[in-house]
Amino acid sequence: MKKIAISCGDINGIGLEILLKAHEQIIQKVIPIYCVHYELLQTASKLLSLPLPPSLTPSMCTPPKLEIPIIEPKSISKISGEYSYESFMLGCKLCEEKQANALVTLPIHKQAWLLAGMNAIGHTQALRERYGKEAIMMLGCEKMFVALYTDHIPLKDVSSRIKSQKLVEFFKALYSTHKSESYCVMGVNPHAGDGGMMGDEEREIQKAIDEMNAILGKEIFRGVYPPDCSFIPARQREFDTWIAMYHDVGLCVLKAMYFDESINVSLNLPILRTSVDHGVAFDIAYEGKASIVSYLNAVAYATK
Amino acid sequence: MKKIAISCGDINGIGLEILLKAHEQIIQKVIPIYCVHYELLQTASKLLSLPLPPSLTPSMCTPPKLEIPIIEPKSISKISGEYSYESFMLGCKLCEEKQANALVTLPIHKQAWLLAGMNAIGHTQALRERYGKEAIMMLGCEKMFVALYTDHIPLKDVSSRIKSQKLVEFFKALYSTHKSESYCVMGVNPHAGDGGMMGDEEREIQKAIDEMNAILGKEIFRGVYPPDCSFIPARQREFDTWIAMYHDVGLCVLKAMYFDESINVSLNLPILRTSVDHGVAFDIAYEGKASIVSYLNAVAYATK
Repeated sequence: MKKIAISCGDINGIGLEILLKAHEQIIQKVIPIYCVHYELLQTASKLLSLPLPPSLTPSMCTPPKLEIPIIEPKSISKISGEYSYESFMLGCKLCEEKQANALVTLPIHKQAWLLAGMNAIGHTQALRERYGKEAIMMLGCEKMFVALYTDHIPLKDVSSRIKSQKLVEFFKALYSTHKSESYCVMGVNPHAGDGGMMGDEEREIQKAIDEMNAILGKEIFRGVYPPDCSFIPARQREFDTWIAMYHDVGLCVLKAMYFDESINVSLNLPILRTSVDHGVAFDIAYEGKASIVSYLNAVAYATK
Repeated sequence: MKKIAISCGDINGIGLEILLKAHEQIIQKVIPIYCVHYELLQTASKLLSLPLPPSLTPSMCTPPKLEIPIIEPKSISKISGEYSYESFMLGCKLCEEKQANALVTLPIHKQAWLLAGMNAIGHTQALRERYGKEAIMMLGCEKMFVALYTDHIPLKDVSSRIKSQKLVEFFKALYSTHKSESYCVMGVNPHAGDGGMMGDEEREIQKAIDEMNAILGKEIFRGVYPPDCSFIPARQREFDTWIAMYHDVGLCVLKAMYFDESINVSLNLPILRTSVDHGVAFDIAYEGKASIVSYLNAVAYATK
């Protein structure tokens, strides 16, 4: 069984509830290393009136080197920000030292990280800084993964980023870290530019597709598909992985169709990191209402 | 019962099959005025081995003033381009003269229009030229309509079009021609700009929303929503009409979820025009395989 480091996320959100509720299921498939103090799980279990699973022993917890913080349900705090950051960094370290095969992260609160003085505005950015590598953001579930060629940039900056050489590098990185039999490569413009009548970034994309397929010796990267036709039912039956040139054109479909199941995967890094695709959900924190589906999927992907 | 003009679309595509197959159903709800020669329907019915409905009489046909063309299944031709264009223009005229209450169009082939010397590259553009007005493109079905603030322009030109005054005009035009209890107004940038960190077009959109709601005296236009979260299940339950700032961010969801049911509506014009949301489908033309769902929905919307 693979060893999976699990960072606890913001202790004032739904992370610990998910960890506790899913424990019995995940130990069927992995050996978890919880980057959290056992005492915090005890407190969370009391707050939630959720018995601590007997199989969850103190030896499964490798806590960050910090004092045990106090849980303040639904609150943004510097202390919880620090703790979730250190739990995450510890998870990375366990993977780097090969004590864990992959890292699964529970949701952090960005404002809490800011309060704690962290520069990174989220897990993905922190990973990019730690490893000095262009992490690829991919979101989805078995039926639909969407890899983002550009992610957190203004829409108006997308066009200038579409360069065939950069795209080929991206295709290579994606192909070597998330294998699929065929990738649906989406265009940028309405109707994929309609032969250049409405933008011509598709020429760069086509060049990159052709070059990449030539390298692979088969047609693995397919397109360029008009964005609005990339997810029609026929395409959904044909593909399991899409490549979106920008953040929203793929994610709006994914979140419309597979909101609860989706996970977030960071590819092209020295370590594999997967995550739930939702936030701390303070509105329902410590109310026993959190869904564990995304977490279970994140753990499943991490064991692949 | 309302009178609905119906233009025949490209006679070499699936238009006439749809017209014939749906006739019995639509005469329960409307009085159709088919802008096509009765003789063409006879020929199509023979080619399709589909009996001409006895209730479909020559008096229901008001043909364009052209010679009866020859049907050449699956072919792009100048003659079919001319014919579909004239059928469409006739439909407009019938609406202008109040002989019909609305126009439903069957799909044309853009290349055939070009061969026939037409400048317009589609129905919507032709309507804009005929009426000198900014037709609003809206696609969808009862569960999900998506109105496009910009449509057939390159993605890189979207940002500069986002101006609050233009948006208010758009909101007014949409509100007066397609009423909804609340509209989901989508942003432009990832996470709707995240407070200006990734683009600030959302400020213009917010200004327009606030101004429009002030005019209406209630909060009818809602947002600005991050594009990728605009269609999550909770939003789908809340809204029936979305406003997308650009072509693909709304349409990719619509076509992923309601591909067969969707229709295309041209709003903000002297006449109401609805259409199927698919093309001539030469690959299945005259094979008896065409679906009539989108057409029935287009007729239903036209009677509203």
